[in-house]
Amino acid sequence: MKNPSRRSFIKKASVAVLVPLTGAAAIETKPKTMKNIFIHQVYFWLKNTGSEADRSKLIEGLQKMAKIKLLKNCHIGLPAGTPREVVDGSYAVSWLAFFKTKADQDAYQVDPIHKKFVEDYSHLWSKVVVYDSVDA
Amino acid sequence: MKNPSRRSFIKKASVAVLVPLTGAAAIETKPKTMKNIFIHQVYFWLKNTGSEADRSKLIEGLQKMAKIKLLKNCHIGLPAGTPREVVDGSYAVSWLAFFKTKADQDAYQVDPIHKKFVEDYSHLWSKVVVYDSVDA
Repeated sequence: MKNPSRRSFIKKASVAVLVPLTGAAAIETKPKTMKNIFIHQVYFWLKNTGSEADRSKLIEGLQKMAKIKLLKNCHIGLPAGTPREVVDGSYAVSWLAFFKTKADQDAYQVDPIHKKFVEDYSHLWSKVVVYDSVDA
Repeated sequence: MKNPSRRSFIKKASVAVLVPLTGAAAIETKPKTMKNIFIHQVYFWLKNTGSEADRSKLIEGLQKMAKIKLLKNCHIGLPAGTPREVVDGSYAVSWLAFFKTKADQDAYQVDPIHKKFVEDYSHLWSKVVVYDSVDA
């Protein structure tokens, strides 16, 4: 070989470039059905029904909650405006939280950020409904 | 420069190597809060409450639904066994579906696979509650 050090460099560079390509392919072909997840879904109804100010405050509280490290992902939502007989669009704000395990959700319940959220914002809501789900 | 072509190669290779590193960093530091998403959450209660056979049939139906192309992601769930006053764990099966847009969810409602699901499996449930959410 004329220039072994350069050949070696090219080999290494090729490997490095192949890694992300494999990663991208894995993302594209992943199954749509999520597995190995704990889903914590909460719907809030405000004491002051229809109060935009109170809704904004509650959203602000949930934005703080989103910083809890145990959370895998979360979503702060509003009713989508899909009036159908089976759709309950009467809630003010929704909070969807994904955890890796049930144990993580248990720990989240007593996380200081979560406790502070309840302390600071629970006066805003009149009703909370929670649905926790694990893989079928 | 002694060897401009090699310098040029190294420069290009470095860029190529940096791309995946940036990609990896983006994944690690991405915000936990999901955005630009339409969330369709459904809870089913069975006519034959507690029937494992009927629950399995319904899950089988949802597994077929998971093939609808408009779905971004979905999850088929069961109550997680988290008894608290605010938790409703009385449903039999949950179905969480993510769409890119409200229009995609509208199209999903009339997708032949969805229509066939309602046709073939709706005799199993006594109650369905749906919550649709968009970003707050």
